[in-house]
Amino acid sequence: MSAKMKAALFIEPNRIVLGEKPIPEVGPNDALLKVTTTTICGTDIHILKGEYPVEKNLTIGHEPVGTIEKLGRNVVGYAEGQRVIAGAICPSGHSYACLDGLHSQDGPGTAHGLKPMGGWRFGNTIDGAQAEYLLVPDAMANLAPVPDGLTDEQVLMCPDIMSTGFAGAEAANIKIGDTVAIFAQGPIGLCATAGARLRGATTIIAVDSVPERLAMAERLGADAVVNFKETDPVEAIMALTQGRGVDSAIEALGLQSTFEHCLKVLKPGGTLSSLGVYSADLTIPLAAFHAGLGDNKIVTSLCPGGKERMRRLMNVIAGGRVDLGPLVTHHYDLEQIEAAYDLFANQRDGVLKVAIAA
Amino acid sequence: MSAKMKAALFIEPNRIVLGEKPIPEVGPNDALLKVTTTTICGTDIHILKGEYPVEKNLTIGHEPVGTIEKLGRNVVGYAEGQRVIAGAICPSGHSYACLDGLHSQDGPGTAHGLKPMGGWRFGNTIDGAQAEYLLVPDAMANLAPVPDGLTDEQVLMCPDIMSTGFAGAEAANIKIGDTVAIFAQGPIGLCATAGARLRGATTIIAVDSVPERLAMAERLGADAVVNFKETDPVEAIMALTQGRGVDSAIEALGLQSTFEHCLKVLKPGGTLSSLGVYSADLTIPLAAFHAGLGDNKIVTSLCPGGKERMRRLMNVIAGGRVDLGPLVTHHYDLEQIEAAYDLFANQRDGVLKVAIAA
Amino acid sequence: MSAKMKAALFIEPNRIVLGEKPIPEVGPNDALLKVTTTTICGTDIHILKGEYPVEKNLTIGHEPVGTIEKLGRNVVGYAEGQRVIAGAICPSGHSYACLDGLHSQDGPGTAHGLKPMGGWRFGNTIDGAQAEYLLVPDAMANLAPVPDGLTDEQVLMCPDIMSTGFAGAEAANIKIGDTVAIFAQGPIGLCATAGARLRGATTIIAVDSVPERLAMAERLGADAVVNFKETDPVEAIMALTQGRGVDSAIEALGLQSTFEHCLKVLKPGGTLSSLGVYSADLTIPLAAFHAGLGDNKIVTSLCPGGKERMRRLMNVIAGGRVDLGPLVTHHYDLEQIEAAYDLFANQRDGVLKVAIAA
Amino acid sequence: MSAKMKAALFIEPNRIVLGEKPIPEVGPNDALLKVTTTTICGTDIHILKGEYPVEKNLTIGHEPVGTIEKLGRNVVGYAEGQRVIAGAICPSGHSYACLDGLHSQDGPGTAHGLKPMGGWRFGNTIDGAQAEYLLVPDAMANLAPVPDGLTDEQVLMCPDIMSTGFAGAEAANIKIGDTVAIFAQGPIGLCATAGARLRGATTIIAVDSVPERLAMAERLGADAVVNFKETDPVEAIMALTQGRGVDSAIEALGLQSTFEHCLKVLKPGGTLSSLGVYSADLTIPLAAFHAGLGDNKIVTSLCPGGKERMRRLMNVIAGGRVDLGPLVTHHYDLEQIEAAYDLFANQRDGVLKVAIAA
Repeated sequence: MSAKMKAALFIEPNRIVLGEKPIPEVGPNDALLKVTTTTICGTDIHILKGEYPVEKNLTIGHEPVGTIEKLGRNVVGYAEGQRVIAGAICPSGHSYACLDGLHSQDGPGTAHGLKPMGGWRFGNTIDGAQAEYLLVPDAMANLAPVPDGLTDEQVLMCPDIMSTGFAGAEAANIKIGDTVAIFAQGPIGLCATAGARLRGATTIIAVDSVPERLAMAERLGADAVVNFKETDPVEAIMALTQGRGVDSAIEALGLQSTFEHCLKVLKPGGTLSSLGVYSADLTIPLAAFHAGLGDNKIVTSLCPGGKERMRRLMNVIAGGRVDLGPLVTHHYDLEQIEAAYDLFANQRDGVLKVAIAA
Repeated sequence: MSAKMKAALFIEPNRIVLGEKPIPEVGPNDALLKVTTTTICGTDIHILKGEYPVEKNLTIGHEPVGTIEKLGRNVVGYAEGQRVIAGAICPSGHSYACLDGLHSQDGPGTAHGLKPMGGWRFGNTIDGAQAEYLLVPDAMANLAPVPDGLTDEQVLMCPDIMSTGFAGAEAANIKIGDTVAIFAQGPIGLCATAGARLRGATTIIAVDSVPERLAMAERLGADAVVNFKETDPVEAIMALTQGRGVDSAIEALGLQSTFEHCLKVLKPGGTLSSLGVYSADLTIPLAAFHAGLGDNKIVTSLCPGGKERMRRLMNVIAGGRVDLGPLVTHHYDLEQIEAAYDLFANQRDGVLKVAIAA
Repeated sequence: MSAKMKAALFIEPNRIVLGEKPIPEVGPNDALLKVTTTTICGTDIHILKGEYPVEKNLTIGHEPVGTIEKLGRNVVGYAEGQRVIAGAICPSGHSYACLDGLHSQDGPGTAHGLKPMGGWRFGNTIDGAQAEYLLVPDAMANLAPVPDGLTDEQVLMCPDIMSTGFAGAEAANIKIGDTVAIFAQGPIGLCATAGARLRGATTIIAVDSVPERLAMAERLGADAVVNFKETDPVEAIMALTQGRGVDSAIEALGLQSTFEHCLKVLKPGGTLSSLGVYSADLTIPLAAFHAGLGDNKIVTSLCPGGKERMRRLMNVIAGGRVDLGPLVTHHYDLEQIEAAYDLFANQRDGVLKVAIAA
Repeated sequence: MSAKMKAALFIEPNRIVLGEKPIPEVGPNDALLKVTTTTICGTDIHILKGEYPVEKNLTIGHEPVGTIEKLGRNVVGYAEGQRVIAGAICPSGHSYACLDGLHSQDGPGTAHGLKPMGGWRFGNTIDGAQAEYLLVPDAMANLAPVPDGLTDEQVLMCPDIMSTGFAGAEAANIKIGDTVAIFAQGPIGLCATAGARLRGATTIIAVDSVPERLAMAERLGADAVVNFKETDPVEAIMALTQGRGVDSAIEALGLQSTFEHCLKVLKPGGTLSSLGVYSADLTIPLAAFHAGLGDNKIVTSLCPGGKERMRRLMNVIAGGRVDLGPLVTHHYDLEQIEAAYDLFANQRDGVLKVAIAA
């Protein structure tokens, strides 16, 4: 297959362009997807800005919806033409980490095989989803058929945003009746808010400064919202909880301020579930950490992937539990992806997520 | 490769013979092992007796120690000639069950892919380890290098007996300071006894009727032993615990009597961890079950496999924590495997486990 | 205080009458409640029928809503006149079981102090809630203030039905995206259905034979209902899950048939969460138990109590997550409690729960 | 009781003196102990130095072994003259935190009742154990009878050091076969080392700079020791683990350097279990934290208390699992406690722990 396809390529910092690449060859354990819909992630903007380094000419993107174009020789249980998604994180299934249940921290099948973020390959260590075609490695571990009746856009958040946001709620160790605060209501924070509701939290407090995002948080499950530009969020949350603090706090941005606010509103024994991608050392304030004696937990989560995770998330949507459709605020064709990057990188026009039809 | 090899073949109930088979061809994700040492499991005796059906001419055995003879084209991270083991359970890594962390209940990579015991393939659904050569499927998920300095016999229990027995202790939810009773001290029960010690149980009570097995239980970690032919084990254990009962009870035989004894000595809130392979319906006595109101758990475990599990178990041995060498009471060559079956099936001569040099 | 109060007294099997008793004296750690609303539980019917023995003249009932009439000398943090509930299970807080986090299996503060159902005292080992006044022992562990704005009937299910049903969902180890079947849709099964929804199950299948109960199940969160009089429930559920089985099955009745159906629809690795009060030995069918090799769990739960549990459950209601008001189908005064027993014991007139104004 | 007793009193920073106080009166839920043996904790030195503020004239100390002198009117299940210990942390049993299983973060029985370190009362908010007599509040939750045959010194570490160190190992989420590093081998770090061994870690690496402490670590279970004055501990541990890192790292000192070393040797997915009492803000280095994407956990633990915890710890000793006797390097009478403080505060003469006979 020497035919060409269009793809969004990283050229250098501040430059991702729509270029051409050969359609990939399909190895025995791979599958080739014809991408039908994809999106741009905040992480892609880190790449665009040169804050997260990838190789020149790499195809960006890790959120594919598509149809199976071709299956590798060893891949069984699927049919060409089938509609599928694959998670942003593509575990091999056969690393030491995978066999230990730690699928996101996958690594090569060598002596040890533990590597931070090793499961994140699309648009990171191999070509990604912002293209006409996508090669999915370890296809049997990663291809998840889309249930009939769900549209591309309904499942477009499953590969990353929904999986990550929900992971934040899952790692927060929520019990029925808990009070949970979620700091930052971008797409991941909004999914964490929806996830907290789905786990049984009964007082959900969403924090942001953008009124539209706070309104969306209420729509997705928040019981109360705090605009941190209008009020001190720590004081507001301590007042809302009558001084008790929250059982769990979810950090969904990646800044010292949000991380610190989480600790400051956390009850003794509570859990800080961190989703943000940080870009600097963090400080743990002594008092908020109870000098190390508060029986607290700080937990970080990388987006879970693999076909079973995708199956479950699509069940959530098929079951009518959560509707993430409203997160898609803008639509583009792959041809227009540079404009989409421009809009999304600059967070113009109230954008939450863009859908890219490929 | 049309060369032949020797292999223990199931012919019909009560007849396993040493026959010949072609040396297997190696597919892209497989590895071929030259078996150096293997053993016979109680499960193989169920097969021999026709109690567990397998296909005619299947090679029996699921406990291989060997060297890599040939690697499939896609298999990286290993070298031919390397000493390895593979677990009795060979997870594919890519099924829905594996991606859910449930590696033993693997199944085909189809729509659902959950199948009881699906991960058990050697000597069950594919040819097994009692042969000169063994084909290991999904080799990158299953080949576990043997650390230098460990002999074949030191690691021979890892693939099944040790993994199963330890799983019984792990599933028993043992906390430091717990009291645990283990019913039956065959090889699996003995490993459960060692495992309970390794998890922090501080009063370990081993039950059997064979003095040599009870002595071995004490050697592997039991604090007290109960010979159920000499004393009522329920009364004895309630006396040993001053009427409190045990925090966890481990069933390691597969009979109504041992299952029932477990329930009868279990405290409210306690866990029954069941390892036995049952051959008839079980009865739960109403009173011992506190009419369903005792906050009790009954948990069953199938032997965990995969290279990460094997790596950990070999660490236990390399670290000097447990020495299972004494479980090997008899030695045979593969040529003599019919005699080994005869001895083991009839439990003659105080046999615990046999080592078969291939 | 030698004044008298009215109370529903157990006289002998099939005879609970409204009689008189002295208003209890208040010990230093006790509180006396003026009961305002209570109800009758299925367990009370077991007592009525003589199936569960209690002492003659015991006041029955374990589901109190009331106001604090008098506080014991050591009880701080409450005010007389305050509206409170107390759980059906009244942990002491100071037993070995409580200090181990196992509050329902409380027992006397002696050497061992583990006793099945030891935390269930009201209407079992001490006088209960179907009376004008109720003495609450270990008041500081058990009195839970009712949030402003919630009516008696809104919180009337918290002490038992809701706590029990939710515990069934909690013990079922539900993950986001799970499929859960709940067998029997009486009040506890209905609460388990609501609880499964609250924990993130996305395919919830409710089984019963009474159309009104199945309709209520759908109202409380079931995605599909199965009338076992019209269709084989095992076949129906295996079809609904495309042969996969359910991740968890909740038993909410206490019969062999429902227990067995749970096992038969359970996937390998799945959990059977049992809430029923059984009255006979149970049989575990060999095949449905995968001969002990299915990595399955059977978990039983007794209603969790204590003021923290009550606080959380009232949060669920205050947060608008679940409305159990429709479960109250009939209303009586304490004077009419014998009629209420007659209706409830005979399950006439579509009764789900009765409210008794005291 | 207006009789007087001797007690170690905090007067002002750098001044703890042996003074006199009235023997306490016994409330209905209390018990009065005749202290027979106690000890000095590192925390007491923080108090001595004025780093942790307590009220003037407070009796210091939180590690009592004694006999019951007098029981409160409501206290049942004990006998005067009985030998008991009580944990450093004295949960009430009846707070919201206790009823949520979070016994160390106890608080007053009011609306919310969550307070960091609320369960630590002895020598903090009420008079402590370095005295002839000690009043134990909530006696039924806290008095733990000493098994026959154990000496005072054998159980002297249970109330604090052993409970804390073991908690560090328990919170580290150790699985059989894990590699664990423990930073600092003072009394708590040594107990964490013993605890890691008891939970099934098979490669235990102890870090300190004092050869005697490293030798003691090996005696208590370490497989390898690293003297951080002789070698870079991060490099040494990465070499010992062939670049894999450790599954869990335990911080047992309370400094930035040890906290940071823990993160730097932790594998992706690993747990940092922190026991240290910090005295300044902490920094989380970005790279060691994998920018928040490493699926890591940071967990802090306060010493668990209560009679059930004490019962379990004494079982560990009675069962011969761990011998902490060698930690007691020096002996004093209560009369000499000022000299004991002087030795311990200045860490002279290789002191690990002192025993104070009262």
